[in-house]
Amino acid sequence: MNTKRFDEGLKKLKEIDGKAGEKVIESLASIAPDLAKYTIEFPFGDIYQRSGLNLKTRELVTISALTASGNCQPQLNVHINGALNVGCKPIEITEVIIQMAVYAGFPASLNGMFVAKEVVNSYSKCITSESS
Amino acid sequence: MNTKRFDEGLKKLKEIDGKAGEKVIESLASIAPDLAKYTIEFPFGDIYQRSGLNLKTRELVTISALTASGNCQPQLNVHINGALNVGCKPIEITEVIIQMAVYAGFPASLNGMFVAKEVVNSYSKCITSESS
Amino acid sequence: MNTKRFDEGLKKLKEIDGKAGEKVIESLASIAPDLAKYTIEFPFGDIYQRSGLNLKTRELVTISALTASGNCQPQLNVHINGALNVGCKPIEITEVIIQMAVYAGFPASLNGMFVAKEVVNSYSKCITSESS
Amino acid sequence: MNTKRFDEGLKKLKEIDGKAGEKVIESLASIAPDLAKYTIEFPFGDIYQRSGLNLKTRELVTISALTASGNCQPQLNVHINGALNVGCKPIEITEVIIQMAVYAGFPASLNGMFVAKEVVNSYSKCITSESS
Amino acid sequence: MNTKRFDEGLKKLKEIDGKAGEKVIESLASIAPDLAKYTIEFPFGDIYQRSGLNLKTRELVTISALTASGNCQPQLNVHINGALNVGCKPIEITEVIIQMAVYAGFPASLNGMFVAKEVVNSYSKCITSESS
Amino acid sequence: MNTKRFDEGLKKLKEIDGKAGEKVIESLASIAPDLAKYTIEFPFGDIYQRSGLNLKTRELVTISALTASGNCQPQLNVHINGALNVGCKPIEITEVIIQMAVYAGFPASLNGMFVAKEVVNSYSKCITSESS
Repeated sequence: MNTKRFDEGLKKLKEIDGKAGEKVIESLASIAPDLAKYTIEFPFGDIYQRSGLNLKTRELVTISALTASGNCQPQLNVHINGALNVGCKPIEITEVIIQMAVYAGFPASLNGMFVAKEVVNSYSKCITSESS
Repeated sequence: MNTKRFDEGLKKLKEIDGKAGEKVIESLASIAPDLAKYTIEFPFGDIYQRSGLNLKTRELVTISALTASGNCQPQLNVHINGALNVGCKPIEITEVIIQMAVYAGFPASLNGMFVAKEVVNSYSKCITSESS
Repeated sequence: MNTKRFDEGLKKLKEIDGKAGEKVIESLASIAPDLAKYTIEFPFGDIYQRSGLNLKTRELVTISALTASGNCQPQLNVHINGALNVGCKPIEITEVIIQMAVYAGFPASLNGMFVAKEVVNSYSKCITSESS
Repeated sequence: MNTKRFDEGLKKLKEIDGKAGEKVIESLASIAPDLAKYTIEFPFGDIYQRSGLNLKTRELVTISALTASGNCQPQLNVHINGALNVGCKPIEITEVIIQMAVYAGFPASLNGMFVAKEVVNSYSKCITSESS
Repeated sequence: MNTKRFDEGLKKLKEIDGKAGEKVIESLASIAPDLAKYTIEFPFGDIYQRSGLNLKTRELVTISALTASGNCQPQLNVHINGALNVGCKPIEITEVIIQMAVYAGFPASLNGMFVAKEVVNSYSKCITSESS
Repeated sequence: MNTKRFDEGLKKLKEIDGKAGEKVIESLASIAPDLAKYTIEFPFGDIYQRSGLNLKTRELVTISALTASGNCQPQLNVHINGALNVGCKPIEITEVIIQMAVYAGFPASLNGMFVAKEVVNSYSKCITSESS
């Protein structure tokens, strides 16, 4: 039986990235299903539910932290996709990543941008093919 | 003779944090004045001049990156102060820092919040005493 | 009204470090009380409640991670104290910190050890004065 | 001629991960054989020889540090395998990695768990095929 | 129209690594051409132009920082290649990377060395085939 | 009884920073004397003894790594002092630290420079008072 935090978290995560929630549940099912549960409950059932900051800003500050950390490419991928889904423009995302050259150095910024390039490209193609 | 980038950067930095520009110039004068020059030219003369992201959002993504990195307290102090100066509400700043518990862990989030506590408190006092 | 996770978390945190729970609640009360709530709910109400690993081992793996990260001295302080409280011997703690020289380099290991020195010394004095 | 520390280190490393010692020696032979020598002498000839902490605990604190650092996948792979070899149960390993969500954030914990999934799966298959 | 800093930076970057400048410009053209511009202007148009440190030393201190950070393999690749181009001997590069075992731990040093192995090997082959 | 590596390491460390060796031995005596032993044996008895790189370059690449890591101020202090002792000019040290703005961001570079300022100032005073 799921907690209310889990159900609300999964719904929120679906709003951000349609498939990321199911993917994390599936990929952890055989090794540590509870980590999937926590990943949905705490970040998305607690934090992303909060008022005080809109979803677009939440995604942008996540992108800056993940770019600066430099070793979370899979999560950066999910959240750039999520940012686009909740209405961020590509230029807002790339501006955040460019700014990280100041705070985390050029390698972190460049490597973050290469992730953005891939996600934004797939996203555009996906939208183009959907609408054709 | 200053470059145009320097003059515009210094002006922008004054807009963000009235005294930070002079402080960095002064504090580096005897050891590495060129680092002060670069600090003003590139981050504030190039990056913070860019359109595509407003100043408030630029400050919030900086706060998230500095909180997540966990070892830039002096700069976090400057940019929390700067965020308040350019119109961010304290709650927007604290939401960003809380969210970093998800991406960088609780210690980084807690240590960032202790910096925010100090800055927000001084800021309120400062405003109260100015207006009294 | 507190959640069950909060109440159980606070109890667990008291078991680990008698005063750390109250301190974090107090110190965040004026700036971000919800971060205190999450700090007690998720780490201590969820994770430290789990079976599969005893409390002593949980404290030792926390000490290694905090030593390796190199910028969480306040939390390292709390958890070295906590490790002693739940029955770890000083030598187990110092062995973990020495081993971090291998994985995170000598500076991280040395700086972690200086925290351990302070905590272990205060702890011994505290116990000596209590029993005299 | 090998030092005593090297010979004892290589023996200890074989106990932890049968092939890791030879692999590191081989892979560095053409570029920096001395780094292989140091890797065996200091970590395994000095540190892992020490009393005060049993091998299982040494492996668990290594796994927590490598998971938290987030950019040592090859070494995390070796030490999860090593942990299984010296008698850690898969659940002890996954508990350590889950706990890192608290101290290093969810991305580090998730990426560490994906390494664990791979290693634990191969390990089980390997044991199954050996015993059939 | 390029700035003088860009033109001088591109020239300097060509001196360090013949193709890296064009590659970064090309790879960012569709997503964030300004990041390519900044990458050439500030690091190579400002910093690498400075006197006070020769190019060989500049490359070696870059290699140590990138090895220690542990998550900048693409940039480490470029700068090991660059170090060879400006006259560093392979042994100088491998010594720097070995030394990082002390300051950043063995995993960072080993992972840096595996990048060096690949670059030094390709470099030798390339030179051999050019001169044959 | 000390190992040969320890004796040679202590001699080397004295050459780099006259008092750092004794300080680390003293400061760890009550908590983990073996960590002092390893700190002298491996870095200074093994690594700094190696040919292939002169002492001045060894100190400069150490300064870049410690500046970039951003959380090793005590060790950065020791090695800036050491760099001056083995003949590095202040400008070589400050150039290395400025260059870290490129690879680790401005906060790391600025915080490293503030350490350099203090060390270089004390060093000059010390020399002035010695020669007067």
